[in-house]
Amino acid sequence: MKLLEQRIQKDGRVLGDDILKVDTFLNHQVDPELMQDLGEAFAQAFAKYKIDKVVTVESSGIAPALFTGLALHVPVIFARKNKSLTLPDDVYTADVYSFTKQTTNHIMIDHRFLNRGENILLIDDFLANGQAISGLLDISHQAGTYVVGVGIVIEKAFQKGRAILDAQGIDVVSLARISNFENGQVVFATE
Amino acid sequence: MKLLEQRIQKDGRVLGDDILKVDTFLNHQVDPELMQDLGEAFAQAFAKYKIDKVVTVESSGIAPALFTGLALHVPVIFARKNKSLTLPDDVYTADVYSFTKQTTNHIMIDHRFLNRGENILLIDDFLANGQAISGLLDISHQAGTYVVGVGIVIEKAFQKGRAILDAQGIDVVSLARISNFENGQVVFATE
Repeated sequence: MKLLEQRIQKDGRVLGDDILKVDTFLNHQVDPELMQDLGEAFAQAFAKYKIDKVVTVESSGIAPALFTGLALHVPVIFARKNKSLTLPDDVYTADVYSFTKQTTNHIMIDHRFLNRGENILLIDDFLANGQAISGLLDISHQAGTYVVGVGIVIEKAFQKGRAILDAQGIDVVSLARISNFENGQVVFATE
Repeated sequence: MKLLEQRIQKDGRVLGDDILKVDTFLNHQVDPELMQDLGEAFAQAFAKYKIDKVVTVESSGIAPALFTGLALHVPVIFARKNKSLTLPDDVYTADVYSFTKQTTNHIMIDHRFLNRGENILLIDDFLANGQAISGLLDISHQAGTYVVGVGIVIEKAFQKGRAILDAQGIDVVSLARISNFENGQVVFATE
């Protein structure tokens, strides 16, 4: 998605070898018009599927997921993060390890919001090591729902998340794919 | 807002004396069309002001804030929550005590996103004891921005948050105002 790549080039900040900060438009300050464009792009990319619900993880996934749900006319569920060891027993849970923060979160979705046999679309802001999406896949499996695809705003193609999803035959659509960082600049993958 | 009150009557669950669960459409599963309606209602309610930015707290405030920002054509900032004691030094922070969870979160906004003299509109899902909004007011004060108003999706008028904001002369708009719960049912305030 050209518009997104241009925005990343303009406003993204590369820190060190593998960190891209996009907190001016995606995950701290948010550009609502851009989020609407992203949501419509995801809806179009997955238009061939019947989708019952869009699922993401709080907080950074909420904005793009919300506009995807709006464009598809379906509810959006965001998994809640929880660090406590005691969890309610009416939720599906999975562990998600954050390499950046070096902490493990439990993510959880209430049983009421995922029904066996439903088709769900997973949306997230970043795909790097694939931990968050793997957690959502785990929860989807527990609930007996079917993941029709995964929509990612920014994929770091040089990390292992994409390979993990490809190995499971999952339809992944990334609106921007970064092949590497070079002298503090973003280099996009050409497909 | 009639539409919202009807949705609360239909899908809200009253737990005990003072808890209202609206996780089927507002803060776990989210109805994007309703969020769009809420955002447009806030934009209309505050149309008389020049607004530079919409500000909220993750995660439940993000959905209504995002559509308010879309309708007003301005960026949306969500304050991040942080439990750790060490905070980066380039952020404005405030402490927010949660009566429900009995924990204190730091909330923080990067210095880059609030500029002295800007007019900001605060949006949140609930107003109960006013802790989250008070934290955002504190941050706004630190940044030298001016809070033109506070937009609340659901106000519990029987708790003290509204009085705290009224005492400061802040323009508060709540789309649904709950006067009390009676036999597990929601009673709305008639103004």
